[in-house]
Amino acid sequence: MSGRLFNEVIQNHRSIRQYTDQQVSDEIIKDLLQSAKSASTSHNVQAYSIIIVRDVQKKKKLAELTGNQSYVEKCPVFFVLCADYYRLKKVSEWHNQPFEVNELEQVLVGGVDTALVAQNLLLAAEAYGLGGVMIGGIRNQPKEVAELLNLPKYTFPVMGLCIGYPAQSPELKPRLPESATIFYDEYNEDQLEQAIKEYDQVTEAYYGARTNSQKGEPWSKQMAQHLSKPNRAHLESFIKNQGFLKS
Amino acid sequence: MSGRLFNEVIQNHRSIRQYTDQQVSDEIIKDLLQSAKSASTSHNVQAYSIIIVRDVQKKKKLAELTGNQSYVEKCPVFFVLCADYYRLKKVSEWHNQPFEVNELEQVLVGGVDTALVAQNLLLAAEAYGLGGVMIGGIRNQPKEVAELLNLPKYTFPVMGLCIGYPAQSPELKPRLPESATIFYDEYNEDQLEQAIKEYDQVTEAYYGARTNSQKGEPWSKQMAQHLSKPNRAHLESFIKNQGFLKS
Repeated sequence: MSGRLFNEVIQNHRSIRQYTDQQVSDEIIKDLLQSAKSASTSHNVQAYSIIIVRDVQKKKKLAELTGNQSYVEKCPVFFVLCADYYRLKKVSEWHNQPFEVNELEQVLVGGVDTALVAQNLLLAAEAYGLGGVMIGGIRNQPKEVAELLNLPKYTFPVMGLCIGYPAQSPELKPRLPESATIFYDEYNEDQLEQAIKEYDQVTEAYYGARTNSQKGEPWSKQMAQHLSKPNRAHLESFIKNQGFLKS
Repeated sequence: MSGRLFNEVIQNHRSIRQYTDQQVSDEIIKDLLQSAKSASTSHNVQAYSIIIVRDVQKKKKLAELTGNQSYVEKCPVFFVLCADYYRLKKVSEWHNQPFEVNELEQVLVGGVDTALVAQNLLLAAEAYGLGGVMIGGIRNQPKEVAELLNLPKYTFPVMGLCIGYPAQSPELKPRLPESATIFYDEYNEDQLEQAIKEYDQVTEAYYGARTNSQKGEPWSKQMAQHLSKPNRAHLESFIKNQGFLKS
């Protein structure tokens, strides 16, 4: 298979939030999981778990807990991707070793390992003609999510992932230009201002077209608003309660 | 292109640490970057940057800083993938908004956004017949890495990525069985012990074959040793110095 074609699939990504009634076959799910677990992992810790949620009541509850995102309920299959050191705690006990997960490093590795798996899972699905969207809202009420899914200590939900056959065909969302995100041999902030201003024009037009108004909010303004107040301030204490970091 | 073939590429991943002298063309690099930036991102923050390092002296220095990993020096192109809120800080100033990145949420989003981009980049490369390996050692001496690459405040290196044409063909590394990592509708710890014991036998044989001894160390023992002492305990204070979390 050609590299170009493979890259076309990757570059064709858009978030899909509406699905047909068609179910995802067990055969395809099995292949997606095989792809998911093939991701790189830090020091082979494989510090993730996947909860596959098809139970209708649980999806309904998860839709509420993620901020009333109806597609969490309506997608045929919902994945909850968790950072997971619980297995590692067990094997430390087997071998009578201390278990040191008090550093930010372990939280970061858990998040990164889980994200690598999630990206494989989503791409694998998209290659089969499925579509999906990642759900950061799974971190809105992590304690309630953990109770609902029986998550043990030393785990935390990193993201949700809705998967199904697309019943919509949205435009590609424009990304920051290369000059805002790619640097050669060292970071160069001189190139940022112009790049972001260009992107602001692109996003004004893009969001304007979606809302049938002349102009949408430019990216820089959306971001400034988004970061103007604390976001998910409860997360640190939840993750500490799960056994990580220093209390 | 068939979903099955695409998934075969994903499932064929192995870490490649030896490269031929062949350079990676600018045309291919351009396509890889296009794939990288197509990844999902939390709330469209796009909180990552990529430093492409080809400078020989910088690669040599980065090889030292990542724990004397010679392939960091020898690979034709080395990527440093950073969580990046510096752009977001700039746009907050433009719009006279407060800038709130004091929560663990922002560190996690930075790590996750960066990992999603990194996974796209590596898969995109593998589809072109390139190979690579992710380098968590970029977090060994993050302050020195930041100085070398001129990284501004509100950024931190998440991982490195060596890319080149493979000069080795290692076996697939076995992963944890599905029963250790995949759950249906809720977490079920009853299935873990048996699954990990099976995996221990597989990894004993795998590492034994690589070292020409009868038995290698089983996974559970490697993990118990790896987590028996604090790992990268400096990371939290570095990330705080970069402007994140509460000091």
